[in-house]
Amino acid sequence: MSDRNIRIESVDRRAVEDQEVEIVERKGIGHPDSLCDGIAENVSRALSNLYLDRVGEVLHYNTDETQLAAGNAAPAFGGGEVVEPIYILLVGRATKQYEADDGTEYTLPVDSVALSAARDYLAETVPELEFGTDVVVDVRLGEGSGDLQTVFGEDGAAVPMANDTSFGVGHAPLTETERIVLETEEYLNGPYADDNPELGPDVKIMGKREGDHIDLTVAAAMIDRYLDGMEAYKDAVASVREAVTDLAASYTDRSVGVEVNTADDYEDGAIYLTTTGTSAEQGDDGSVGRGNRSNGLITPNRPMSMEATSGKNPVNHIGKIYNLLSTRIAEAVVDEVPGIRDFRVRLLSQIGRPIDQPHVADAFVVTDDDVALSDIEADIDAIVDRELAAVTDVTRDVIEGDLRTF
Amino acid sequence: MSDRNIRIESVDRRAVEDQEVEIVERKGIGHPDSLCDGIAENVSRALSNLYLDRVGEVLHYNTDETQLAAGNAAPAFGGGEVVEPIYILLVGRATKQYEADDGTEYTLPVDSVALSAARDYLAETVPELEFGTDVVVDVRLGEGSGDLQTVFGEDGAAVPMANDTSFGVGHAPLTETERIVLETEEYLNGPYADDNPELGPDVKIMGKREGDHIDLTVAAAMIDRYLDGMEAYKDAVASVREAVTDLAASYTDRSVGVEVNTADDYEDGAIYLTTTGTSAEQGDDGSVGRGNRSNGLITPNRPMSMEATSGKNPVNHIGKIYNLLSTRIAEAVVDEVPGIRDFRVRLLSQIGRPIDQPHVADAFVVTDDDVALSDIEADIDAIVDRELAAVTDVTRDVIEGDLRTF
Amino acid sequence: MSDRNIRIESVDRRAVEDQEVEIVERKGIGHPDSLCDGIAENVSRALSNLYLDRVGEVLHYNTDETQLAAGNAAPAFGGGEVVEPIYILLVGRATKQYEADDGTEYTLPVDSVALSAARDYLAETVPELEFGTDVVVDVRLGEGSGDLQTVFGEDGAAVPMANDTSFGVGHAPLTETERIVLETEEYLNGPYADDNPELGPDVKIMGKREGDHIDLTVAAAMIDRYLDGMEAYKDAVASVREAVTDLAASYTDRSVGVEVNTADDYEDGAIYLTTTGTSAEQGDDGSVGRGNRSNGLITPNRPMSMEATSGKNPVNHIGKIYNLLSTRIAEAVVDEVPGIRDFRVRLLSQIGRPIDQPHVADAFVVTDDDVALSDIEADIDAIVDRELAAVTDVTRDVIEGDLRTF
Amino acid sequence: MSDRNIRIESVDRRAVEDQEVEIVERKGIGHPDSLCDGIAENVSRALSNLYLDRVGEVLHYNTDETQLAAGNAAPAFGGGEVVEPIYILLVGRATKQYEADDGTEYTLPVDSVALSAARDYLAETVPELEFGTDVVVDVRLGEGSGDLQTVFGEDGAAVPMANDTSFGVGHAPLTETERIVLETEEYLNGPYADDNPELGPDVKIMGKREGDHIDLTVAAAMIDRYLDGMEAYKDAVASVREAVTDLAASYTDRSVGVEVNTADDYEDGAIYLTTTGTSAEQGDDGSVGRGNRSNGLITPNRPMSMEATSGKNPVNHIGKIYNLLSTRIAEAVVDEVPGIRDFRVRLLSQIGRPIDQPHVADAFVVTDDDVALSDIEADIDAIVDRELAAVTDVTRDVIEGDLRTF
Repeated sequence: MSDRNIRIESVDRRAVEDQEVEIVERKGIGHPDSLCDGIAENVSRALSNLYLDRVGEVLHYNTDETQLAAGNAAPAFGGGEVVEPIYILLVGRATKQYEADDGTEYTLPVDSVALSAARDYLAETVPELEFGTDVVVDVRLGEGSGDLQTVFGEDGAAVPMANDTSFGVGHAPLTETERIVLETEEYLNGPYADDNPELGPDVKIMGKREGDHIDLTVAAAMIDRYLDGMEAYKDAVASVREAVTDLAASYTDRSVGVEVNTADDYEDGAIYLTTTGTSAEQGDDGSVGRGNRSNGLITPNRPMSMEATSGKNPVNHIGKIYNLLSTRIAEAVVDEVPGIRDFRVRLLSQIGRPIDQPHVADAFVVTDDDVALSDIEADIDAIVDRELAAVTDVTRDVIEGDLRTF
Repeated sequence: MSDRNIRIESVDRRAVEDQEVEIVERKGIGHPDSLCDGIAENVSRALSNLYLDRVGEVLHYNTDETQLAAGNAAPAFGGGEVVEPIYILLVGRATKQYEADDGTEYTLPVDSVALSAARDYLAETVPELEFGTDVVVDVRLGEGSGDLQTVFGEDGAAVPMANDTSFGVGHAPLTETERIVLETEEYLNGPYADDNPELGPDVKIMGKREGDHIDLTVAAAMIDRYLDGMEAYKDAVASVREAVTDLAASYTDRSVGVEVNTADDYEDGAIYLTTTGTSAEQGDDGSVGRGNRSNGLITPNRPMSMEATSGKNPVNHIGKIYNLLSTRIAEAVVDEVPGIRDFRVRLLSQIGRPIDQPHVADAFVVTDDDVALSDIEADIDAIVDRELAAVTDVTRDVIEGDLRTF
Repeated sequence: MSDRNIRIESVDRRAVEDQEVEIVERKGIGHPDSLCDGIAENVSRALSNLYLDRVGEVLHYNTDETQLAAGNAAPAFGGGEVVEPIYILLVGRATKQYEADDGTEYTLPVDSVALSAARDYLAETVPELEFGTDVVVDVRLGEGSGDLQTVFGEDGAAVPMANDTSFGVGHAPLTETERIVLETEEYLNGPYADDNPELGPDVKIMGKREGDHIDLTVAAAMIDRYLDGMEAYKDAVASVREAVTDLAASYTDRSVGVEVNTADDYEDGAIYLTTTGTSAEQGDDGSVGRGNRSNGLITPNRPMSMEATSGKNPVNHIGKIYNLLSTRIAEAVVDEVPGIRDFRVRLLSQIGRPIDQPHVADAFVVTDDDVALSDIEADIDAIVDRELAAVTDVTRDVIEGDLRTF
Repeated sequence: MSDRNIRIESVDRRAVEDQEVEIVERKGIGHPDSLCDGIAENVSRALSNLYLDRVGEVLHYNTDETQLAAGNAAPAFGGGEVVEPIYILLVGRATKQYEADDGTEYTLPVDSVALSAARDYLAETVPELEFGTDVVVDVRLGEGSGDLQTVFGEDGAAVPMANDTSFGVGHAPLTETERIVLETEEYLNGPYADDNPELGPDVKIMGKREGDHIDLTVAAAMIDRYLDGMEAYKDAVASVREAVTDLAASYTDRSVGVEVNTADDYEDGAIYLTTTGTSAEQGDDGSVGRGNRSNGLITPNRPMSMEATSGKNPVNHIGKIYNLLSTRIAEAVVDEVPGIRDFRVRLLSQIGRPIDQPHVADAFVVTDDDVALSDIEADIDAIVDRELAAVTDVTRDVIEGDLRTF
């Protein structure tokens, strides 16, 4: 039996799947808020790797504050142009000078590495955006403390102390609506966009379920140079609607309605046409931590953490680690223990205590009708305990880019 | 009977007050995230008033993206100094040129007004911070569309259309823990600070209730020039602890533990001493919408909206309006209808539809044991309906500064 | 006899006073380029004093790169407004961390001190400009080398080495036209403005002499809130013209024509009306070293140095020191030695050599008709030698603000 | 006979070639000030071409204020790195919205075009500098007036009016020292660098002639990744010295001494090693108009204009046009008229008057001993007149990039 403070209780509220109304949202990878999340996280990974490569340990940093100020564009069928660039400011702090115990002095090019990571991320995510003219990226990284932050070195052995009193919350399994919203965005920004280059990465999906009917509202930024006129645009919208409808049907037996770019007004020519594929080109600002939670969704039916997961250092920033770990725990429990209809776990840290020893790990279980909590409680406890013990795996997986943060 | 789509259902989950573990947090007004919220909202109000004064109507704007990059300070007993200034960037868009129907052309000084509002807010909130040397405020407000955004003019008659598909959520009543957390911050930053100038405005309260025991963890930035040494600092910490303990006792019969500045290490001299009263002076960045929800709290036990309320225009930005309105509805219902132990209402907008006609207004009621929902359902429905009809009051109250947004 | 390499030669070119055409310009203290010069120099002095106060010696810095990006204003009789703020960026480098030989570590608040100096200078020079809303000042001071730069400590004994191969050039006496241009600006921005608050500090004087006729062209920014209409504006212009005409008459017997705000077009309402008294409010950018030379004038009839004098550190930055010193030498020579109609001295440094030992000090003398150079050569040599020996006085006088740099 | 006000006078001062001491300097194309000049001029040309392409005429703009704040680098033999990026801010104003007489409305992407021009220029000039990570370029171009500025359209017929009272000055021929300094930089940054990639573009040449001895001091930034150690560095320095010595010998019979990187201290390892080939990477800021005059040189022996030539619009900005035109006139006169040892021409504009009608064109001639001014005066007058008549050629040549501005 573990000495960790793990509580498991049955809740008799209805599983989210069984509630009457459910709302789910996902901001696609090209949405201004998601761009900030993605840049912040990519910068964070680049800094972690810089420190590991040079110093052998991750030094103090936090880069969870990227601000995007929208540009101005003049989209036009056949190809428009960005008129005023998007401005992105990387904010945070990072250790720039470090003296190791053996007296070795390091000068770490954190600004250049951060800028490079931002550029690479943008190139991959919004390829139509020309770096340096369509978007200007600047950097304000303050000097970190220079204290050796961590023992997450080559061996990864020791467990760091929590840097704050914070908490994380995770859920599993996804409801049908959640899964559809998530998969829709990933499909559109994946295989669909590969075949349909007119679809930009700024895709936003709002799912609403009332009883057994699901409405999906899709806002999809179309890229002007792939469309030669209004008919082509209408075809592109219709094609997205069809693709989403088909995809949704494969995930649910409920009835599904799909709307794409509902705010369009063809007569006024007010359509969702962009030059770069993101609304950041024209009027939509963005920042970190304002969009998707760490499981990729915004789920007002469920408790959520306000903590921005993206961009924080993954070694001892407890807000980041516990959000990711709680999701991992929830998924593991539901995957391994049968009979669970809804599972939520909350991890509360205590500042200064090892992060594998949360102040409390609170699990809430909605069992299937024919299952008693007592039958599965021990299994759940064991999995929670196991995953807590492996908390540093979260750090490693984040640094290696294997964990979603938004 | 109203034609609004109002649903009321009884939920048999436990009221938050009755749940086993409850977590509540409030970032005080001097916290970097709260500073951004407050600046953004003050800028928003200033722009609304500018437009009303000059044009008679509120034109298009959104200023919900303020970014704060922390400075660098060298606090010292008796008075230290800021070494590198805090940098604050006001981001958003606002109409700068406008031609009225009668041909009158307006040039609106939105940048200057925004900067002025930010300066005034900082002067009031963090008086130790010297504007222009301890903090630099810059502005990037893009040109808004210039379309007449609103009919919220002198008469305020018409009801605008929703600008987006979004939702808001409100709760009432506050639990004991929530009330204590909220009141503690307001007391510390109000009467207490008036008498104890060494207490800075960056006060963060974390409340955790397990069963009938409440733990309050207070992080309180002390101002160096009012403290002549370590003993004075210790006294200041002890004084806060005592004040909070006394205050909490007046709100609850539960046992309460209070910790203040738990991360202090007197031997190392690692204490929470600041020159300006905010951690933004040294390493803590901030941005809008990352802290308190519109009821002033972060409440992971309750559904929350991710929408940043502060800084958005209050005329037709539905994310802002519905968050504020749902809280107002919840408070009115609980105030006027007896027998409710926990009440939550969720408003879902539909883009292009009048904002007093939400797609759905969902109320969830936990009644007292001796009350049936059917007895009070009609009363609740009437209040929800009444408040929805009065939705433009929210706009007015926001512009007049009568509504909390963080 | 000194061992300094001093050369004195007679030149038979005509003195500038005797040339047929002469052009002289002065940008007043409120001109955007002069504002940058003034800010840069005030920041420099503030940093020198900071280092002297804290460390006892001046550490490495250079702040000779201030950039001003103009704002946008809507001036109007009776009082207009700034619409978009002027943006000023302080650029340079300064030592922020310093460890003295005795191990004492200093953290120097160079950013805050620089911002404070800029603010104070603007408040004094352009009082109508509201800091923080009409003008935003930001700072990018890189970290200096941290090497002990100087021995200009409390005693000021030793002579530093030149940091570069550079040169300075000085002239005396001023011609009538030069004197009139200089005095006109100083009078307008001094006693005249005290009595006539409608005159802003952005006054530009262009003097052109052809034979014995001098034309003065004055561009004078008028401040809107002191003028209630076009007649008042015309009166203000006429008043300046009259004052300048009177002043010029007291300096010369030549005929003088004065034009004020010649580009005005009263019918179109295109007049030189401002809200703040500087054209930086609307469209005129500025930077350091683009305006007046260190004697306060732009004199295309005379050799000039391209070196920006303002903002450079006055301890070993030879470009600054030699420009100031050569002017001082020229003035001393002409003051003490009779019979000189025109005097120019050029100092050329050699990197790494003591600054009181220039590679060459070249003096060019136009004597009065009845004076032979041989009669006064020894006197000149002695004065040049004496002033070179006292070179560190220049440093002290600059730090104390007793020397004009633009 | 022309009705232009052209004055020609003989001066009996010595030609610069015959003066005892002569100082000449050229900042190479990779020097921070020259980078700013070059970027500003390239941005200017790009905007001129944008306006001509889209609107058919050049609209109002000025981009003569680029500011460079130096970065921070860690050069190392074999290849170092930039630690903090260089920051370049493009400042100026340009017309962004324009409505033609026929009602056509234009939105001009001036920000994007400016950024693109800056990027291209940097890529060509400092290829080692990685755009976006080693250097961040941001832009603050205010909105220009939108008035049609010019009639320099497809036909180029009409002559614009002077926008200011300003003057330009040109000289010919170059002295030996001037030619050597100019040619040395061009050779080093041309054929020499092609064969010797270790030589960066930041080459500064200071020439000093005393009587018949010329000293050339070269500061040459070496690029680390082409040098594997100190011996290679020494060889590179020696190679530059040899090449410059050989080149100089082909231009003069005077004795020539050459010093390269005189401030190096091999023992301390203090050498002029860079990662990118420009000192902007580490501590050397730059701005427009602080370096070379429009003939490519800094010549304190000659009258110079303070006017920044680079970045100004070439249609009616008289400061730019007259500096370029006066040089062109001087070169034409000396080229076509035999017997001139030194020629200087000064053009003074009058605001509001056609630019081919200067207030005065003043020519100063030093003839060869056997030539009387009266013999060649008519020829000179005719050439000055002819070139003034062709003033709009300057505009065209600038836009086409055929004229040097720094």
